[in-house]
Amino acid sequence: MCGITAYVGHGEALPFLMQGLAHLEYRGYDSAGVTILNKKLTTVKRKGRLANLEEELKNYDMTGHVGIGHTRWATHGVPSNLNSHPHTNAKNTLSIVHNGIIENYKELKEILLSKGYTFQSETDSEVVVQALDYFYDGDLMEAMMKVLNCIDGSYALCAISTNEPDRIVVAKKDSPLVIGKTKEGYVAASDTPALLAYTKDVYFLGDNELALLTADSCDFFSRTGESITKEMTTIPYDLEAAQKNGYDTYMLKEINEQPHVINETLRGRLDGHTVTLPKLDGIDFSTFNKVYFVACGTAYHACLCGANILEKATKLPVMTQVASEFRYNDPIIDEHTLCIFVSQSGETADTLAALRLANKKGCTTIAIANVLGSTISRDAKYTLYTAAGPEIAVASTKAYTTQLVLLTLLAFYIAERLNKPIDTKALDQLKDLPMYVENIIKDEDIFASYAELLRNQHDCYFIGRSLDYASVLEGALKLKEVSYVHADAYIAGELKHGPIALIEPGTVVIAVATQPNVAAKTISNIQETIARGADVILFTTDDQDAEGIKNKYNLPHVDPLLTSVLVAIPLQLIAYHTAKIKGADVDKPRNLAKSVTVE
Amino acid sequence: MCGITAYVGHGEALPFLMQGLAHLEYRGYDSAGVTILNKKLTTVKRKGRLANLEEELKNYDMTGHVGIGHTRWATHGVPSNLNSHPHTNAKNTLSIVHNGIIENYKELKEILLSKGYTFQSETDSEVVVQALDYFYDGDLMEAMMKVLNCIDGSYALCAISTNEPDRIVVAKKDSPLVIGKTKEGYVAASDTPALLAYTKDVYFLGDNELALLTADSCDFFSRTGESITKEMTTIPYDLEAAQKNGYDTYMLKEINEQPHVINETLRGRLDGHTVTLPKLDGIDFSTFNKVYFVACGTAYHACLCGANILEKATKLPVMTQVASEFRYNDPIIDEHTLCIFVSQSGETADTLAALRLANKKGCTTIAIANVLGSTISRDAKYTLYTAAGPEIAVASTKAYTTQLVLLTLLAFYIAERLNKPIDTKALDQLKDLPMYVENIIKDEDIFASYAELLRNQHDCYFIGRSLDYASVLEGALKLKEVSYVHADAYIAGELKHGPIALIEPGTVVIAVATQPNVAAKTISNIQETIARGADVILFTTDDQDAEGIKNKYNLPHVDPLLTSVLVAIPLQLIAYHTAKIKGADVDKPRNLAKSVTVE
Repeated sequence: MCGITAYVGHGEALPFLMQGLAHLEYRGYDSAGVTILNKKLTTVKRKGRLANLEEELKNYDMTGHVGIGHTRWATHGVPSNLNSHPHTNAKNTLSIVHNGIIENYKELKEILLSKGYTFQSETDSEVVVQALDYFYDGDLMEAMMKVLNCIDGSYALCAISTNEPDRIVVAKKDSPLVIGKTKEGYVAASDTPALLAYTKDVYFLGDNELALLTADSCDFFSRTGESITKEMTTIPYDLEAAQKNGYDTYMLKEINEQPHVINETLRGRLDGHTVTLPKLDGIDFSTFNKVYFVACGTAYHACLCGANILEKATKLPVMTQVASEFRYNDPIIDEHTLCIFVSQSGETADTLAALRLANKKGCTTIAIANVLGSTISRDAKYTLYTAAGPEIAVASTKAYTTQLVLLTLLAFYIAERLNKPIDTKALDQLKDLPMYVENIIKDEDIFASYAELLRNQHDCYFIGRSLDYASVLEGALKLKEVSYVHADAYIAGELKHGPIALIEPGTVVIAVATQPNVAAKTISNIQETIARGADVILFTTDDQDAEGIKNKYNLPHVDPLLTSVLVAIPLQLIAYHTAKIKGADVDKPRNLAKSVTVE
Repeated sequence: MCGITAYVGHGEALPFLMQGLAHLEYRGYDSAGVTILNKKLTTVKRKGRLANLEEELKNYDMTGHVGIGHTRWATHGVPSNLNSHPHTNAKNTLSIVHNGIIENYKELKEILLSKGYTFQSETDSEVVVQALDYFYDGDLMEAMMKVLNCIDGSYALCAISTNEPDRIVVAKKDSPLVIGKTKEGYVAASDTPALLAYTKDVYFLGDNELALLTADSCDFFSRTGESITKEMTTIPYDLEAAQKNGYDTYMLKEINEQPHVINETLRGRLDGHTVTLPKLDGIDFSTFNKVYFVACGTAYHACLCGANILEKATKLPVMTQVASEFRYNDPIIDEHTLCIFVSQSGETADTLAALRLANKKGCTTIAIANVLGSTISRDAKYTLYTAAGPEIAVASTKAYTTQLVLLTLLAFYIAERLNKPIDTKALDQLKDLPMYVENIIKDEDIFASYAELLRNQHDCYFIGRSLDYASVLEGALKLKEVSYVHADAYIAGELKHGPIALIEPGTVVIAVATQPNVAAKTISNIQETIARGADVILFTTDDQDAEGIKNKYNLPHVDPLLTSVLVAIPLQLIAYHTAKIKGADVDKPRNLAKSVTVE
């Protein structure tokens, strides 16, 4: 998953391209590069963070009114200068940037090699520019259409040519691309934050669509060249919302935003004991004989919680599956299946493909997304938005807890629609969650002291049962993402079936025991790790007997269905402080990107 | 989970007790101890392996015709001499051994403390002997019944008293106990192997039953003292079957037995393209609207495969759950649910409890067990046995692959009974599995060379998709169990959602890509780890493009449903050789026990 930017206008291209790449760096930061078209093409690219490119650019004259830029997350070929984008042809008359994967690049490369083309890089993307050269006959748009007819895979593409120095051709399939209209001309990027400093007026390019951008015009076409009319959308976001706001990292800022954004996610959706989700009022829930939750990563963990709550509230059979498994596992779904898809960005490739499969099979599909107008939110039959606001840190925090809150609301909403008895106590307490979360954040020093236990640790084991297992899965993911501690979560009852062999004196075990029916069992499993020398950190409630456990944090008493939201906070803060102690780059963990738009 | 032994007869007690404990050491080896009754009680116990106890016993006169023994796996209180069994009262007139957990021991301890009793140990078990002292009024059986009325939890208990020097009282609930009749008298133990050198004639004590053993009699009673008649069973096993057979470890021996035991498990169950499981002929499979697979540890991984195959073969919705989760998660099951429980020992506490829950809810229950006459096999409505023979190594190998084979047979059997189209090619190839497995074992040197990559590694990551994900879960479990390498398995598609942050230059990634519809996707994920410096070991088939992957092993071409059996072999051998390289105790990994008979 990479990020791309493009500029054509009456002003200078470079400043837009660079600020855009800075906003897109969350999509990957293995390398970055730009091409400026000013009679000839000047391409500069560098391995590593954007700062490396900025430094290098000082050595070049980069003035010009047309340009394209790219920030890369490696999928084919190691991060290197040569593998960086943009890619140019041998004559240096064409330059392209690409986000996506060309699946048949090996075949295309062989054909082009046989026609005498040579390749500079190991990337799949380079075949696009070489093929463009092969087909180019004076019309960039025509050549691009011919290239698109040859390639399989996903792409957002921007191309420029010295022969047509006034224009950029862009194309899209299965990777995002947004076009913005500014005072000076037209711009394009993988995501709206890259545009917001210049404009809020955007067009969302659709799959299999192309656009021809000049300083004064923007025309849309289908893959076969027919003209298309598109409506402009105005983005409601404020760029300022994406600042660090005084915190040292976006992650810490976003952790601290949780009381606010949980409140925003609840706003207007709870009327006494009635959950109000008017967008879903058209659904007849009595027609479903099962429910599927599908997502990836952190959103998958939110789904595990949501599924648990929905099954308890409705007694419908509920299944949860990772999107990359769901889409290839021939799931038994039909018009009697409700499928719920969760993705912060709304662009997660596997989740999107799973959603499209469910649509095709006639399921009712509901998307839970955070980014307005994202592909998943547009493709689902029904969409609910979390109100987390832009999440910049790669490791998800506020998106996760708002997903939990929205999925809890959804579970109660469906139960109400099915005339099931409602847990009114839990509904009342939902409104108090922001206050509880705020109070827990105040104990940050305690969680920082727990992180000290991990200072010299290479591993960490999380255990829990039932709903707490979902919580520890997310806690372990957070820790490994930002601190690179090899953290893993186990079902507490499975410890004795193997993982306990890894426990040595001094091993850190983090346990969550908030569910009244199994908390004592988990604490009993903890005792077994203590008997083998483990240092235990326990999150539980004060009515549990946890004799002899030194590092114990008592969570407030809320309905057991709501505890995942509360325990998420200390686990996020432990991950954050461990990463700080270890000197890791909290907001941009190595190898990771914010939005996973390839498989 | 502990092991206990008892002897009352005309010969010497100690030799039986000690050989019995040696056979039971797989149930735990944190400490061991014995009491001999010879007018007075002589109790000797030692922390650590049985060898420590043997050494210590040289200092004592242990002649006598009555005795009890114990090998311990710590659940309450660290491994130590004081916490070891047997436990005696202050006057040294009573001694007991206990396997299980006394759940209300804290309350009982307080009551006994208030009555002036003092405690030597931190164990739950000690309350039994102190309570026995409290109730004892000249009749050990009567006192035991009073004690049992006070305790909650699970137990197999043996008790002796200097006032009644000719007898042993034994009792059982939720922990196994077998009584044997020998030429010299009566013996008892947690499991049949402990008896086999002395006798094959046994009685299985039932839950809430007691027995009074003397040299010449064995009488059975209910908890309320009514006399019970029991039938004797003759064990078909041969003790010799449990020898190492020339291999350096039981694990290696058992890996090498797989061609044979897979064949034995298939024997008589495949007639052309028809699967024959006459024990299940009474089941009407058309009444089920869903199927649950439930197990723990390795058997759970077998279930993941079995569930995948069954769902594909029947299109019935199939769910798999870890037993410790299933039993507490209020599963939505009823008389239309088929529940399948898998346990090598047939004694796994959580699986047994889950089975009993399913029975109670009216489900049709099928057990897949390896040990004849085990509790799970007796409690299930229907039972099928794997023919793996005694498995001594704690890390399961042949039990796992025979479970896979039997679950595959079961899936095809159910499909046939439901008149679904049958994959006859897969059925034909099932018969060839022993041959394929034998050929793969011949490549042991290759797998040993892969293990060399792990020589200096502390971590290892396994990845796979679909059925291959179940295989890598088991591969990772095997590696962590025996070599203590922190190995974890991830769904390949989830790598980018977090775990890839852990990949550094030199990290070892083991990938399995045998499923045609997703193998290329997994290999694409591998490339991403290689781009970040990982050393990859790949198990796939020769038709997959795995350019640039040095350590690649091509598995034979069989139906994709059968590959889990084949790939299990190299993953077992990698685990075995890594453990050998690291100098770990292959057959008896630290902290683990063979049969997990507590929660």
